[in-house]
Amino acid sequence: MQSDEPSRRGADPWLGHYAQRAAGMVPSEVRALFAVASHPEIVSLAGGMPNVSALPMDAVAGLMADLVMERGPVALQYGSAEGNPSLRETICTVMAQEGIDAHPDDVVVTVGSQQALDLVARVFLDPGDTVVTEGPTYVTALGTFAAYQARAVHVAMDERGVLPEALGEAFTRLARDGRPAKLFYTVPTFQNPTGVTLAAERRLRVLEVCRRAGVLVLEDNPYGLLHLEGEPMRALRADAPADVVYLGSFSKTLAPGLRVGWALAPSAVRDKLVLAAESAMLSHSAFAQLAVDRYLRTQPWQEQLKVFREMYRERRDAMLEALQKHMPAGVSWTRPDGGFFVWVALPGGLDSKAMLPRAVQAGVAYVPGTGFYADGEGRRAMRLSYCYPPPERIWEGIHTLADVIGTELELWETLGTTAHPHSPSVLRQ
Amino acid sequence: MQSDEPSRRGADPWLGHYAQRAAGMVPSEVRALFAVASHPEIVSLAGGMPNVSALPMDAVAGLMADLVMERGPVALQYGSAEGNPSLRETICTVMAQEGIDAHPDDVVVTVGSQQALDLVARVFLDPGDTVVTEGPTYVTALGTFAAYQARAVHVAMDERGVLPEALGEAFTRLARDGRPAKLFYTVPTFQNPTGVTLAAERRLRVLEVCRRAGVLVLEDNPYGLLHLEGEPMRALRADAPADVVYLGSFSKTLAPGLRVGWALAPSAVRDKLVLAAESAMLSHSAFAQLAVDRYLRTQPWQEQLKVFREMYRERRDAMLEALQKHMPAGVSWTRPDGGFFVWVALPGGLDSKAMLPRAVQAGVAYVPGTGFYADGEGRRAMRLSYCYPPPERIWEGIHTLADVIGTELELWETLGTTAHPHSPSVLRQ
Repeated sequence: MQSDEPSRRGADPWLGHYAQRAAGMVPSEVRALFAVASHPEIVSLAGGMPNVSALPMDAVAGLMADLVMERGPVALQYGSAEGNPSLRETICTVMAQEGIDAHPDDVVVTVGSQQALDLVARVFLDPGDTVVTEGPTYVTALGTFAAYQARAVHVAMDERGVLPEALGEAFTRLARDGRPAKLFYTVPTFQNPTGVTLAAERRLRVLEVCRRAGVLVLEDNPYGLLHLEGEPMRALRADAPADVVYLGSFSKTLAPGLRVGWALAPSAVRDKLVLAAESAMLSHSAFAQLAVDRYLRTQPWQEQLKVFREMYRERRDAMLEALQKHMPAGVSWTRPDGGFFVWVALPGGLDSKAMLPRAVQAGVAYVPGTGFYADGEGRRAMRLSYCYPPPERIWEGIHTLADVIGTELELWETLGTTAHPHSPSVLRQ
Repeated sequence: MQSDEPSRRGADPWLGHYAQRAAGMVPSEVRALFAVASHPEIVSLAGGMPNVSALPMDAVAGLMADLVMERGPVALQYGSAEGNPSLRETICTVMAQEGIDAHPDDVVVTVGSQQALDLVARVFLDPGDTVVTEGPTYVTALGTFAAYQARAVHVAMDERGVLPEALGEAFTRLARDGRPAKLFYTVPTFQNPTGVTLAAERRLRVLEVCRRAGVLVLEDNPYGLLHLEGEPMRALRADAPADVVYLGSFSKTLAPGLRVGWALAPSAVRDKLVLAAESAMLSHSAFAQLAVDRYLRTQPWQEQLKVFREMYRERRDAMLEALQKHMPAGVSWTRPDGGFFVWVALPGGLDSKAMLPRAVQAGVAYVPGTGFYADGEGRRAMRLSYCYPPPERIWEGIHTLADVIGTELELWETLGTTAHPHSPSVLRQ
């Protein structure tokens, strides 16, 4: 028998075979954009790629070669589903910087924190379940919840993070409607996409609201150690070990190319996550785990973090100064204390998604705000990242973007629309 | 607020929160066994770990260091969800050895072939869906199907693989019962757990049966290039590009510690798998992918495969000779032409699971047959692997195992049970 091979983009003969959840698997707006934004002539303020060029490549190369020569038969072999024991110990010392007192047995190592997020969704979410998130929130988390056919409900935030009262009201309303929240997904520190940090004085209140409602907190914290001012924030998990699943990552503090992240969870939950990890991949790369462990145990990683922080601080400052200098009246933005992102709100009438092709044509890319909402909100907002381009490129990109916005504003004013150029707050539109 | 931390093994306060699918996530029998079998005094014929010590460690160390020095900013950065383009080309040249003519655009790189299996299940399986598999079949595939709340239905095989007529009858029966098969999951070459290979003359017939029934074939082929006799088998995918999703892996031909596998799928299916991969992990490790690609492009990997084959051939021969010399009458076994495994059937009355503690106490471990069936079958069978221990240890382990079986048989005969010691075939019990 010889099958007729269809042309690569012909009709799909398996169309009727897909699972219902496959309907929720759609390309993200960010993903489609990355191809465009990668042209070198465009200043990309779109991606969230850390600047790994700042790593000491000779030291990394040396430790990897040593790892193969000294521990090859272990590093190249299968590992266990929960992850390497030595790395799990090291991860606990990293988390201690954020006030977390954790046992290595409660950690499961994952393929970046994205896989940790996927495993939590797999263990907890039935179709139709409700996840409460900040509005806006991390785009790929929304994609994961959609892939598990769960519903995301946003709760408003301001410049000091999610509003505890609004969170409690949402829990009450959802429970009354018979669709109680199962998880509260939050990026409390240097949030993606807004750069906003949940204020210290709100943290215990948020935990209390969740605890009273019986809602498990999913704390996603990839940026926590990239604080550009003062000391690291105390993690939510530090004050509620039984109520929080904490997701961590080495993608921003070391390198995303090794894909090492983790989840820290209450013991029984962690046992479920290990079984889910085994089903998902048998075990993570022993080599990648031992390489990260060796880096953290033999290299001055805290000094390297200072190098990263210096670099990102310079870039954040460039972006904030450029915004201040170039943006037309009516445009507002957040002022992050760490992480990679600034959230920009445009004056009423403008649409960041409709404007994007013109911005790209002018030479600058960003991510439109709608991708960060499950409900179509965010049309007037955009995410800008300062992590990857050097300061002079950031200045250039912001200048270009400001010109594009200025032209759009003039057009709107000429057309005499009802646009009201001064919005009261970047996050309250 | 300060939560009360429960003791690590106390009651689970989140018990009522888990998704329905979490009920299907239970530890595999193989997994529980690995801890016991890892004691050095025990000859483990249980695990399926390749012998990575045979790799040229200095060459691997060198290419990894070179990779960081020459391409660090790419190797340590995020990649794309579909996988590195250069590696996807190389993967196509590897598959060409099995008669497969594939386009790199139809490949998605995964965390071992286990993740490929998980992504296929994610894209295709709704709760209650039916997957047809060989009986017995790969234990972790059964775990994955269970995690997606799908039902596995076994079709009988003999020493030349699955029976095409029985397969067609199963499809007809399932369709008539209103629960038609969605996938046929098969390990057609050097199967895990039996070592059996689907005979060449049956392959087109199996494809035809699946095509007529509208059932997608899921061909899991991690062992195909570890043929110990003659030439590689022609893959099912080679003759039915539109009807087969093919899963491949570098875990057995290079090293499992890098966790690089792949799926080759019809174009539209592959697009869904890429979206599922993005949701599952954003992207696989660029470093691991580039390391595998560099190994395949710069090292004499086909010569290395010959080294692996020589080693596994010697071990397989040792196991088959030892079985022949030591096993009591009534015990039967398969004679694999490749891969890692021999399947052993015990005379009626004996129970491989009940016998395992006595075998471990005597100094040898194996995997009881029940784990490889979804329906409780396999009590009289066991899987033995020859991949990891050296020949003299295999001889020792088989000798010990034969003594344990002999003692059990004497016990059964003394007790005057109805055991009939001569079973007609290792796979037809």
